[in-house]
Amino acid sequence: MVERLLLGPGPSNVPPEVMAAMLRPTLGHLDPDFLACMQRVRERLQQVFRTRNQLTLAASGTGTAGMELVLTNLVEPRDKVVVVVNGFFGGRGVEMAKRLGGEVVEAKFPWGEPADVGAVEKALAAAKPALLYFVHAETSTGVRNEAAALAAAGRKHGALVLMDCVTSLGGLEVDVDRFGVDAAFSGSQKCLGAPSGLAPVTLGERALAKIAARKTPVPSIYLDALWLEKYWGSERAYHHTAPIHMVYAFEEALRLVLEEGLEQRWQRHVAAHRALAAGLQAMGFELLPPAAARLPMLNAVRLRDGIDEAALRKRLLLEHAIEVGAGLGELKGRILRVGLMGVNANRGAAIRFLAAFEECLAAQGAKVPAGAGVAAALAG
Amino acid sequence: MVERLLLGPGPSNVPPEVMAAMLRPTLGHLDPDFLACMQRVRERLQQVFRTRNQLTLAASGTGTAGMELVLTNLVEPRDKVVVVVNGFFGGRGVEMAKRLGGEVVEAKFPWGEPADVGAVEKALAAAKPALLYFVHAETSTGVRNEAAALAAAGRKHGALVLMDCVTSLGGLEVDVDRFGVDAAFSGSQKCLGAPSGLAPVTLGERALAKIAARKTPVPSIYLDALWLEKYWGSERAYHHTAPIHMVYAFEEALRLVLEEGLEQRWQRHVAAHRALAAGLQAMGFELLPPAAARLPMLNAVRLRDGIDEAALRKRLLLEHAIEVGAGLGELKGRILRVGLMGVNANRGAAIRFLAAFEECLAAQGAKVPAGAGVAAALAG
Repeated sequence: MVERLLLGPGPSNVPPEVMAAMLRPTLGHLDPDFLACMQRVRERLQQVFRTRNQLTLAASGTGTAGMELVLTNLVEPRDKVVVVVNGFFGGRGVEMAKRLGGEVVEAKFPWGEPADVGAVEKALAAAKPALLYFVHAETSTGVRNEAAALAAAGRKHGALVLMDCVTSLGGLEVDVDRFGVDAAFSGSQKCLGAPSGLAPVTLGERALAKIAARKTPVPSIYLDALWLEKYWGSERAYHHTAPIHMVYAFEEALRLVLEEGLEQRWQRHVAAHRALAAGLQAMGFELLPPAAARLPMLNAVRLRDGIDEAALRKRLLLEHAIEVGAGLGELKGRILRVGLMGVNANRGAAIRFLAAFEECLAAQGAKVPAGAGVAAALAG
Repeated sequence: MVERLLLGPGPSNVPPEVMAAMLRPTLGHLDPDFLACMQRVRERLQQVFRTRNQLTLAASGTGTAGMELVLTNLVEPRDKVVVVVNGFFGGRGVEMAKRLGGEVVEAKFPWGEPADVGAVEKALAAAKPALLYFVHAETSTGVRNEAAALAAAGRKHGALVLMDCVTSLGGLEVDVDRFGVDAAFSGSQKCLGAPSGLAPVTLGERALAKIAARKTPVPSIYLDALWLEKYWGSERAYHHTAPIHMVYAFEEALRLVLEEGLEQRWQRHVAAHRALAAGLQAMGFELLPPAAARLPMLNAVRLRDGIDEAALRKRLLLEHAIEVGAGLGELKGRILRVGLMGVNANRGAAIRFLAAFEECLAAQGAKVPAGAGVAAALAG
């Protein structure tokens, strides 16, 4: 098996300390030593989310399970939900809310553009929804939505605020309490640097009050937030068997995040992004989103006509052992998604990509100035 | 961190080969090498479930997620469901089916007794349900229900047959196709010997036809069976990011199961159970279920009055590094649950438990014939 440099939209590479932690001896999921480990995960997650929310835990599934946990507990049939849609993952929110019987109003914006907060406000004022749902870092387009402003708009219009921060948490400022977000979820395998398999979630008091007031039962036991709280909290009531080794790994990944410091980590992601963006520009490539709305950890690179995107990705993977992501939906074949997440958020990874990208373009006969990308990244 | 001998109701200890496989380099979840790994998992699971079902895969969650996948896809609001209840996990099935809007008829039997197939037949004849749900190996009581007979009864009365084989798969005969089971689920961490975190599921043609005929959408994306099939099948459509390292571990665990051989593995579980049961009997303890309905891998040991169950378990864990399980629900404080699953299904583990059990009983002042349990297990 060949080691890959994982520069796609996630998973990112896992640091050796986290791999080592995964190999601790198996414990029972109600063992006092394991309960102490869960408690540390909980406290570290509160720091990473920047929240005092008691109900902060790692659900036993991937980021998609986190999305589903938040929506399944908070959307009741006939609830009005305004969903901000400017990419694939906003669309996922629409579909999931509809499956739960929610009456969805989409606040739609072009893929590659950030949501216009004023337009979202108008949608909120018109719909008076119970819930506002948005994606902080839209992984499909590399766009950053203005989380604090969107959350403030939602609160102003009396909506509970739900945030997807799968790609942003640990790589870009997320401050659940200051933003005024009522429920948020993420994934373990992107900027947090753990293997895929856990979904950090946090729910505040207003969210818990909505769950307590439900007229219908939550249509899931596995993702029932109040029941999970009894398992993660002081009651330790049996709910399911936690994925022990994943929790070990995640505990260590969170320790590394906090040891580095959140601000430092955000800055490191920005620095890596700047090197990559400078290199791409020198090679004549542009990023999809406008400059002010670009994510540091996920770079959507517009491809010129005539470049065979699938062949390019295949060559990157097989000849250079570098994985990057394809475009989703309407962007398929038109962009590459280059992630610099977690341990891969550094100039070295950006340069390794730029050099390999140049070789793959040349192999397709595309004209690229030799060495220009790497030189610009080094200079930036 | 101390290594424990995990003789509870799961997780069991993980073999070193499986631990080593978990540490393979991280791959992207759409990497061709990872897709090949998924394909091997699928083929091995078909052998372990003894099924030709195409839709056979490992869902990205624990056994409870497997239960939820099967019920969420197959129970529509107002569907009649007969649920066999003779323990905690049958009760879980009732609750989950109700949350999905199913009209549940419970076929109830005392905890510790197997389901009476004739009585279930009567319930089926009276209710004419769309679905029959039962637990093969009731982890809460150590009882084996007659899976083949229950499935035949369900089919005879036109019901789709859903089976929980979380505790039986890999440790007791499960033959999905011969039994006539339409959908089954399990967990990775019991007799299959992988870490907790994956839920093997299999759905047959009749189950798929029911899903295709649904009038309402499946109220989950994460556990949407048809969408998961597109991800695991030839389309490789993006659905979620699989827990890569868990899948590595599971692939290896399944290889070990098949290398040993299913029949040999079942026999090994029976032999370990016989040694344990002989030892317990010599010490004056009985198992809860009648002899003909006892599970080999999960032994519910009746405690005599005057034994402090919680103190006994605590001493086993802290002084002997052996974990066993408590009773659930109405059996709390009245039984111990001793699992001999996966690598722990051997006479050595049974003897280690019996010796430690004797010491813990003596520490409470209970009268036990010295060495009788170990001697009987050695002789058996």
